[in-house]
Amino acid sequence: MSRPAPDLAALIARRRPGYTLEAPFYTDPAIFEADLEHIFYRHWIYVGVEPDIPEPGDYMTVEIGRAALVLVRDDAGEVRAFHNVCRHRGARILSERKGMTGNLVCPYHQWTYDLGGRLILANHMDEDFDRACHGLRPVAIKSAGGLLFVCLAEEPPADFDEAAALIERYTAPFDLRNARIAHEEELIEAGNWKLTMENSRECYHCNVNHPELTQSLFEYGFGFSPADAGPELLEQARAFETAEAEFNTIWRRCGWPLAAIEHLDDRPSGFRIQRLPIAGAGESQTLDTRIACRRLLGTLTERKLGDLSIWTQPNSWHHFMSDHIVTFSVLPLAPDRTLLRTKWLVHREAVEGVDYDLKKLTEVWQATNEQDGALVARTQAGVESAGYVPGPYSPHTEGLVEKFTTWYVRELAAGLGLA
Amino acid sequence: MSRPAPDLAALIARRRPGYTLEAPFYTDPAIFEADLEHIFYRHWIYVGVEPDIPEPGDYMTVEIGRAALVLVRDDAGEVRAFHNVCRHRGARILSERKGMTGNLVCPYHQWTYDLGGRLILANHMDEDFDRACHGLRPVAIKSAGGLLFVCLAEEPPADFDEAAALIERYTAPFDLRNARIAHEEELIEAGNWKLTMENSRECYHCNVNHPELTQSLFEYGFGFSPADAGPELLEQARAFETAEAEFNTIWRRCGWPLAAIEHLDDRPSGFRIQRLPIAGAGESQTLDTRIACRRLLGTLTERKLGDLSIWTQPNSWHHFMSDHIVTFSVLPLAPDRTLLRTKWLVHREAVEGVDYDLKKLTEVWQATNEQDGALVARTQAGVESAGYVPGPYSPHTEGLVEKFTTWYVRELAAGLGLA
Amino acid sequence: MSRPAPDLAALIARRRPGYTLEAPFYTDPAIFEADLEHIFYRHWIYVGVEPDIPEPGDYMTVEIGRAALVLVRDDAGEVRAFHNVCRHRGARILSERKGMTGNLVCPYHQWTYDLGGRLILANHMDEDFDRACHGLRPVAIKSAGGLLFVCLAEEPPADFDEAAALIERYTAPFDLRNARIAHEEELIEAGNWKLTMENSRECYHCNVNHPELTQSLFEYGFGFSPADAGPELLEQARAFETAEAEFNTIWRRCGWPLAAIEHLDDRPSGFRIQRLPIAGAGESQTLDTRIACRRLLGTLTERKLGDLSIWTQPNSWHHFMSDHIVTFSVLPLAPDRTLLRTKWLVHREAVEGVDYDLKKLTEVWQATNEQDGALVARTQAGVESAGYVPGPYSPHTEGLVEKFTTWYVRELAAGLGLA
Repeated sequence: MSRPAPDLAALIARRRPGYTLEAPFYTDPAIFEADLEHIFYRHWIYVGVEPDIPEPGDYMTVEIGRAALVLVRDDAGEVRAFHNVCRHRGARILSERKGMTGNLVCPYHQWTYDLGGRLILANHMDEDFDRACHGLRPVAIKSAGGLLFVCLAEEPPADFDEAAALIERYTAPFDLRNARIAHEEELIEAGNWKLTMENSRECYHCNVNHPELTQSLFEYGFGFSPADAGPELLEQARAFETAEAEFNTIWRRCGWPLAAIEHLDDRPSGFRIQRLPIAGAGESQTLDTRIACRRLLGTLTERKLGDLSIWTQPNSWHHFMSDHIVTFSVLPLAPDRTLLRTKWLVHREAVEGVDYDLKKLTEVWQATNEQDGALVARTQAGVESAGYVPGPYSPHTEGLVEKFTTWYVRELAAGLGLA
Repeated sequence: MSRPAPDLAALIARRRPGYTLEAPFYTDPAIFEADLEHIFYRHWIYVGVEPDIPEPGDYMTVEIGRAALVLVRDDAGEVRAFHNVCRHRGARILSERKGMTGNLVCPYHQWTYDLGGRLILANHMDEDFDRACHGLRPVAIKSAGGLLFVCLAEEPPADFDEAAALIERYTAPFDLRNARIAHEEELIEAGNWKLTMENSRECYHCNVNHPELTQSLFEYGFGFSPADAGPELLEQARAFETAEAEFNTIWRRCGWPLAAIEHLDDRPSGFRIQRLPIAGAGESQTLDTRIACRRLLGTLTERKLGDLSIWTQPNSWHHFMSDHIVTFSVLPLAPDRTLLRTKWLVHREAVEGVDYDLKKLTEVWQATNEQDGALVARTQAGVESAGYVPGPYSPHTEGLVEKFTTWYVRELAAGLGLA
Repeated sequence: MSRPAPDLAALIARRRPGYTLEAPFYTDPAIFEADLEHIFYRHWIYVGVEPDIPEPGDYMTVEIGRAALVLVRDDAGEVRAFHNVCRHRGARILSERKGMTGNLVCPYHQWTYDLGGRLILANHMDEDFDRACHGLRPVAIKSAGGLLFVCLAEEPPADFDEAAALIERYTAPFDLRNARIAHEEELIEAGNWKLTMENSRECYHCNVNHPELTQSLFEYGFGFSPADAGPELLEQARAFETAEAEFNTIWRRCGWPLAAIEHLDDRPSGFRIQRLPIAGAGESQTLDTRIACRRLLGTLTERKLGDLSIWTQPNSWHHFMSDHIVTFSVLPLAPDRTLLRTKWLVHREAVEGVDYDLKKLTEVWQATNEQDGALVARTQAGVESAGYVPGPYSPHTEGLVEKFTTWYVRELAAGLGLA
């Protein structure tokens, strides 16, 4: 922190395509601040799901950097978002992660806001005090198929509408809005948020590091180098192609669009939607690749539907399968601390112990998150080292990491008025 | 910390009267540093009471920001203050909070100072080494009726003499110098020191948050809005007026001055002296409003004397009752950390378990301090949030908060040469 | 950290000879950064001993500031040093303090380096990817009689060769390379690294603070003021002279050079080699001043050989006795945090419980380190205090502290281009 603030413009200008970023992007407090300012306070940030607050009066609190927010479902059933800060002396109004309330009452001096953020009670003020000017400050919010995104900018990026519409359409059969959160977890990774994202964007590291996940996930679905293709690799590649062909038939039969949609590095609201085959029995990301929940999502009746994989930039990824959904929200805490919030959802009528076993449902991604967290920490330790220099991404297996990094640098530059 | 240092002059210039301060005043490390420099190293700071060090050779250590001090009662019975730093290699000399010693001996190389701070032993130095130039560095200290104030400035504010004389006169009947500390506690509040002070300067928050304190304290003694006056409030207001009239009779009978003296925002050494009625039986700030200690202070014989309330700026408040005294010292530790040191005093001959029950003596302010600490932490969390904007003080119940804030901004500006 | 960065050039220019440094040298993050940059990343730093990694494939990891290094003994038996950072995504490769390995394999994507640092495996890269350009980054390393020094500079100070040759020659009879680490410990001292070094450079503080060490060490071997010489001191001084004469006879009989060599403040690679008598039985730095290990070092047969004391700048000291060696490595962690790593070595064939008792071997320096750590913390607390001003070193007992300080200021100035 005591090192002189880096020249961000120079760092951006000399970013070398195909290579990891220079160290300050992962370590410097001033660049962390710029990340908050120009990425997390300007883009659409994934923070949770509608089933977090299913009923009117349900609320959840969320922090994005230094922004403390409350999401609440109002009496009309609409989800609203506000800054969770009283307009009187600035106290944080709600401190629980989730709860239910009729109004939002500040515990300090009992200033009271309704679920639409309007100030409806404030004692001892003068007669010329205008309550209408002292409502909770609103924040833009959108639900894309039940996935909740907020944007702190005055003018949120309009291109998100296309992503939201596509997510709505692709996820519709899984009916997220009528799912229930079976389990959720928070993991604080000891690394910069971009290392968490980079790690999520390739499976080059899966083979050795993720024995549980690779039961259902084809490592080579994310690319490989033909030059390194020995007999074992070629067999795996063939297995992936066979599975892909089989799943294409299934998805076509469902009448579902097959084409992957990828806009990771050509717009502010970068996203990617892709269907992926599942290995083995092909049903779910479980250890035995079979469904974890007998009650399928929405009105689905078929178990073997593969994995609808959705990524949004800067901070999320999601897996939709016939029996459950797993969603991941990445939130920066410090240059070297990142919160990963994971939620597992099943049909809202599914009963634990009857329809699903919680351990089977959650064990694959619990293990994978822990493994990824250790890799992120190890990478953070490395990039903080004096001996670190940017290294080359594999063009065969890390192309999507490169797209994330390119997007990040470009959006940061745009925010700084450099692009 | 990585955000660019705020333009303090601009922040001061645009301070909006009647409103809470902008966020950096509560959060920014550079402004915290300025608070130390221009407020805590320049003004008279309340640090303890004469009964902390009743006998010659008794000492106590105190830290104000980065200033480590030792207060010692010398052989003549005078209280002296010095920097607690050896003039040789700079080691901290005394590390206990309180103790008794004949001389002040540095444990590193045994340089030895007498209770007047003179260096009396330093081995292995050259013959031209001048001990007289290497005594402990003194610090200005004053006792106002037994309340100890120190000032780190080269030229301490002279206006404090008037405050000290008035405090001496008003507190004389309670004879603090012959009291004994029955109990003391330290509470670290998770907020800026100014939030601790602001919280102490109003009772708008008392009704809901302080069920113990409001047994004896009239919330409406601190003002209310007639516009909000329903039947319950009007009854409370009437009860306060009745009590005030009754206590005025008592105080007049004692021959005590009745008038409140308030110089909170018109001078460097801001202070306030006020007599307050006590509710219920009217004796003491206890749960049953009756005395906690049968042995009254000084030579007092009457139990029902109300509360002599004394405030000093920047960092103290005190309650003097017939049976005990409670004093509060606020010391900044970090932008978001503040030490509140509370001491309960009784007559020095009062015996625990015979004359007083320690639980009854302390439980009201222990509970109140905890409650206030939680409110301060909640406010700190709020003002650190991106969504915070300054809010309006109630003109009816937060006028004294406004006076504190106005004083603070003016003194800071003066220290910076901006006024 | 929020105080404005000090003007380092001005601080250096006004350094007062014979006095401790001004506070920012011990407390300021920017000066800590300069210390890393110009002292610890430019000079030869003592990090361990050859017996840390006795066999090919043995490695140890070491951190100097933000530089994460691995030292490995290669297949040819040579000790090599590299940055412990993968050239791909920057992950830290080895995370254990010590271990044994055939190759250095990054756990993230399995990039594999041989013990010479060459990249020998990297999957999925393009055909034009040049492995030869992606080997581990090497670091300069030298063994001086088995003491391992690394230097992170592109052009390490060449004057170290003379120190290394002298250390090699003086320590040869003790045959460190064939010793074994019987015990090692890490102590984190709550002070700046320079306070740890200053403390190690004088024994003015020994008499009162180190009852265990002064059984074998003559406090007055480090000087005293004749002016303060009472009968007790004169007797101690006479005892030291008698012991010195006796040991000179012994060392002469061994054919060993007697003269102390001191280049503490006249070159970048400051060092000092001195033989010291041992008090009492004269054998070892133990509580009873007799050997702790019956199996003597190398081919030594005589027990009473005194203490060969070696100091290097910026960060080490060592004691070589007939039966064991103690070495100390000082590494800065933060402005107010310093790692002291201590290793006790005996002949590699010495057997614990048979030839030596571990408690007897280690108890003197364990106690001394703890005592010194407390003194360093006390001094750090003092120099951080607002009341600290630089104080005078004793010309009789702190001359070597002054030499360290003078060296430090000069090397820092040189690094900054100010000299």
